[in-house]
Amino acid sequence: MGKLKRNERVGAMARILASSPNRIYTLNRFCVLFDAAKSTVSEDVELLRGVFRQFGLGEIETVAGAAGGVRFLPKVDAQEALSYVQETCLRLESPERVLPGNYLYIQDILSDPAALEKLGAIMAGPYFALQPDFVLTVETKGIPFALMVARALGVPVVIARRDNRAFEGSVVTINYITGGGQMKTMSLAKRSVTEGQRALIMDDFTKDGGTVRGMVELMREFDVEVVGMGVMVKRLSMPEKQDISDIRALIHVRDDMDREHGAVVEPAPWLLGE
Amino acid sequence: MGKLKRNERVGAMARILASSPNRIYTLNRFCVLFDAAKSTVSEDVELLRGVFRQFGLGEIETVAGAAGGVRFLPKVDAQEALSYVQETCLRLESPERVLPGNYLYIQDILSDPAALEKLGAIMAGPYFALQPDFVLTVETKGIPFALMVARALGVPVVIARRDNRAFEGSVVTINYITGGGQMKTMSLAKRSVTEGQRALIMDDFTKDGGTVRGMVELMREFDVEVVGMGVMVKRLSMPEKQDISDIRALIHVRDDMDREHGAVVEPAPWLLGE
Repeated sequence: MGKLKRNERVGAMARILASSPNRIYTLNRFCVLFDAAKSTVSEDVELLRGVFRQFGLGEIETVAGAAGGVRFLPKVDAQEALSYVQETCLRLESPERVLPGNYLYIQDILSDPAALEKLGAIMAGPYFALQPDFVLTVETKGIPFALMVARALGVPVVIARRDNRAFEGSVVTINYITGGGQMKTMSLAKRSVTEGQRALIMDDFTKDGGTVRGMVELMREFDVEVVGMGVMVKRLSMPEKQDISDIRALIHVRDDMDREHGAVVEPAPWLLGE
Repeated sequence: MGKLKRNERVGAMARILASSPNRIYTLNRFCVLFDAAKSTVSEDVELLRGVFRQFGLGEIETVAGAAGGVRFLPKVDAQEALSYVQETCLRLESPERVLPGNYLYIQDILSDPAALEKLGAIMAGPYFALQPDFVLTVETKGIPFALMVARALGVPVVIARRDNRAFEGSVVTINYITGGGQMKTMSLAKRSVTEGQRALIMDDFTKDGGTVRGMVELMREFDVEVVGMGVMVKRLSMPEKQDISDIRALIHVRDDMDREHGAVVEPAPWLLGE
């Protein structure tokens, strides 16, 4: 094959970097792949960095040092994040989403890989700097969202189970009380995480913070530091029964929904820069 | 801003297309985004198609007609697929993965978004042409792999539950018998799928095909056609107890593993073109 043109190298590089968020590629690797000089590859990287920034497609970061290189962080800029979450809110407002017992139907969004990937990248935004070692969730509904947050951060997803028979090897099990006063259980295999690691806790939904607090407690048993807690949707009760202001959400749903008017659904205030 | 250069357009286009597999973008959309003529954008697409093909980065397909445009299919070429699965097999061979009771530990791979994305794209390969409407799995361990297969195909993931109390709305529940003779249950909300749709069934692991067959039965209740069945890892028992040759795996594990020698782990024959 002949030498590649710059536009060919840049197209391939965009695809390679974007498919492995937060993974460091050495410049040398691209030099070998493209049969190009380091100065050439450096210029390619600069060019791609500029165009990604211009179109809000994420950040290309240069990492200095012996283990250095370039990596892609799928950060979503504030304007784009807000408008995507607003679009999602519009989808959630329709009255037929209010199910008997005043539940809001969000399962279709939790099943949509493209929506989850975007929402996961938006949620990951504030946590790149905190460098979690893994994302923790508990089965079942939160798993797809947690996986996509983990994908954006380039770390594994760890899934606690409701049933301690599901594991091989030794297991830590905790009981915790939900905001509604119910006793619940979650379990995690000992080999899943290591003392001293940093966890980011994620779930699909919270009303009283119970499950999220259960995961915090579970991490305490493992001597793991919790660097953040997040959910896709937070339901706000008025008056507030539990303080769940430390749990970051993308979407806030007001408690007073009904099947005639639908729900009041809004982007979380931090997305508006508040 | 001034007019973009070709390499800038190509870099942005690579990122945009690759982040939404199987989604059609009209050329006009890129014309507006880049403030460029249709002929220019067409040439960009051709260029990107060529470089993606050259480096095995997936296919860019032109879709004709009124609803036409271009879309990205994250197909992995045969050589690359085989070598990635072979690498994964090497990870799985080590003796410390054989747990008491002769289970093979694969949880770390099921937790790794980058590995899942690649393995999911490889598994999706034979199914692009069959155009499934969704990927079906059952909680819990198979969810991350199924989501990544669904991501590659650009379709939703539908998750059956073990517990029919987990749902709002009406539910279909089936009982089925595993290869080991155990009675098990799975449930799915009626609103999750629609009669006449096409399902691709995915799970992380099978030994006797029981859970996969349970999902086939579940789809029969919904009058949904099953276009394929797959698992990441298939365990082969010798002599064969059940015929599970119709379930496509990426990785085959031989039954006679032990904690001294590890397991015999191989890419599935179809990956070798057999």
